[in-house]
Amino acid sequence: MHGYTENKDAYLKRMRRIEGQVRGIARMIDDDKYCIDILTQVSAATKALQSVALGLLEEHMSGCVVDAARAGGDEADAKVKEAADAIARLVRS
Amino acid sequence: MHGYTENKDAYLKRMRRIEGQVRGIARMIDDDKYCIDILTQVSAATKALQSVALGLLEEHMSGCVVDAARAGGDEADAKVKEAADAIARLVRS
Amino acid sequence: MHGYTENKDAYLKRMRRIEGQVRGIARMIDDDKYCIDILTQVSAATKALQSVALGLLEEHMSGCVVDAARAGGDEADAKVKEAADAIARLVRS
Amino acid sequence: MHGYTENKDAYLKRMRRIEGQVRGIARMIDDDKYCIDILTQVSAATKALQSVALGLLEEHMSGCVVDAARAGGDEADAKVKEAADAIARLVRS
Repeated sequence: MHGYTENKDAYLKRMRRIEGQVRGIARMIDDDKYCIDILTQVSAATKALQSVALGLLEEHMSGCVVDAARAGGDEADAKVKEAADAIARLVRS
Repeated sequence: MHGYTENKDAYLKRMRRIEGQVRGIARMIDDDKYCIDILTQVSAATKALQSVALGLLEEHMSGCVVDAARAGGDEADAKVKEAADAIARLVRS
Repeated sequence: MHGYTENKDAYLKRMRRIEGQVRGIARMIDDDKYCIDILTQVSAATKALQSVALGLLEEHMSGCVVDAARAGGDEADAKVKEAADAIARLVRS
Repeated sequence: MHGYTENKDAYLKRMRRIEGQVRGIARMIDDDKYCIDILTQVSAATKALQSVALGLLEEHMSGCVVDAARAGGDEADAKVKEAADAIARLVRS
């Protein structure tokens, strides 16, 4: 059980849509479409991926991080550090 | 013929790899993997997409933009504006 | 008292350095420096700002969010939502 | 003379405004303001900096890159490569 588990179906649906976007970009390249139109689709797919990441992150915080904090002990610090590193990777990607 | 045409096979290969990454992320969600590990893969896929975008953009500039500039006339300005808008979408995604 | 309070001096020092970077960029523009060199400095200042943001965010989570979770009640959910919104603004900026 | 020269005053004005934003953030930290409110201002300053970068870049392309292309020779390729590297730094910052 993770923070995202109860929205699993919605996430899987979003990932399938992103997979379709990525396949569509490959097809545009294969069909010699105009570069700028391809870039527009790449930006859209990137945004969709980041939006999934932001959702997973929020559920991770309200699930794992809050649970660890409530359980007491040092676990919460480790969870926060881990989440902060994930956010940094996201901001820099 | 576009700037990217001569590297088409390499781009198609990269897009297939990204499609595999996206499918892998869906599988991780379906298998209830740990949120942070999923986020790491989402960041990697995002970076791979942005790297494709940067490549397409460079080839667009050395192809379409430079060609339009050499052809003279107003076309180059329109091409630069269009590329600048694509860059802005990329930076903000 | 906030998460960042005990590192306040370090943050103020970093902000002064960023202020110096921003002033340096203005001076480069005023001195007609080469565009690409200015862009390199703008990227460096942007990265420094984002790094401050990531630090504040981590301290916010280990401070305010964890404290709210330990205090029990609904407050933790509101704090997580607020942090998630701040992360989204950061990722999209 | 660079692409941005004729808009120099506007850029200097924008940089002074960003300098004010950065100083305002330092003041918020010094005054122990709430972390999330500080993060909102950091995101705003980051966006303002990136917007300056996008403007400089567009002017660089319609100035230096297009001029180099029109002058013929290999110079245009070097200019495009340089601009592409600057865009990559911007996208990844």
